[in-house]
Amino acid sequence: MDTSDLRRFVTDAERVLELTQFTRNEWLSRPDIVPCRELLLVRATMQPGKSHPFHRHPQREEIIYVLSGSAEQWCGDRHRILKPGNMVLIPKDEVHGTYNPFDTEVVFLAILSPAQADGPNVVDVDHEQPWKDLRQRNHLPPCG
Amino acid sequence: MDTSDLRRFVTDAERVLELTQFTRNEWLSRPDIVPCRELLLVRATMQPGKSHPFHRHPQREEIIYVLSGSAEQWCGDRHRILKPGNMVLIPKDEVHGTYNPFDTEVVFLAILSPAQADGPNVVDVDHEQPWKDLRQRNHLPPCG
Repeated sequence: MDTSDLRRFVTDAERVLELTQFTRNEWLSRPDIVPCRELLLVRATMQPGKSHPFHRHPQREEIIYVLSGSAEQWCGDRHRILKPGNMVLIPKDEVHGTYNPFDTEVVFLAILSPAQADGPNVVDVDHEQPWKDLRQRNHLPPCG
Repeated sequence: MDTSDLRRFVTDAERVLELTQFTRNEWLSRPDIVPCRELLLVRATMQPGKSHPFHRHPQREEIIYVLSGSAEQWCGDRHRILKPGNMVLIPKDEVHGTYNPFDTEVVFLAILSPAQADGPNVVDVDHEQPWKDLRQRNHLPPCG
């Protein structure tokens, strides 16, 4: 098997699995897998009733692209239901969150750039106002 | 409708269509659509027998992620058949090409970073050696 410096092609055999409280992640592009400098890519599966609540990435721009299912996607104080083939562009440091109040799992790609950066990868803000009550004020059901 | 500075969500209504000699492109993230600085995203459909022959992007790293169908993907002098969910990481300025010698269309995401850069976006090398005869030497069928 190639070392990560030589590796270019990533199939199921090369991906790196990770289970978080939010999602089941399949990492496809990360510096320990391929020699990426600009692009991180992870395929995430979120079960019904779960979420990755409001947070921000101080150093990275992000795209979330839905592959299957539906995502209630927030960016700042606006939200949309993203269907397969839809995406959101999240500018660096902008607060965002992904929620699945639906009855089927949602699978999406999260693309982040640059690949390497100093400082925290993520800052959680879901216990701060106005984010804490934002979905409730929009009459949306709670997600774990 | 939002101007591109304010826009975050991209659905079928906001994408920008482009027909090239290689592929039918649906641009999802580009500076005229969303305020991206790092990430370009385009969904490309390549018909059977077509290709985007050997080329390089002097300023940008790229990921190609297959959504449906199969791609004969080259990166340098190596190739693999990428299936849905597979990807290739193409370091900046590395020669690569995508070919569809199969009997069904292939749909893939091309992700490039950074979004804006000086100099040429693409340099074609498919008429230069060793790229010109590389597929033929590997006994692969010609693609248009």
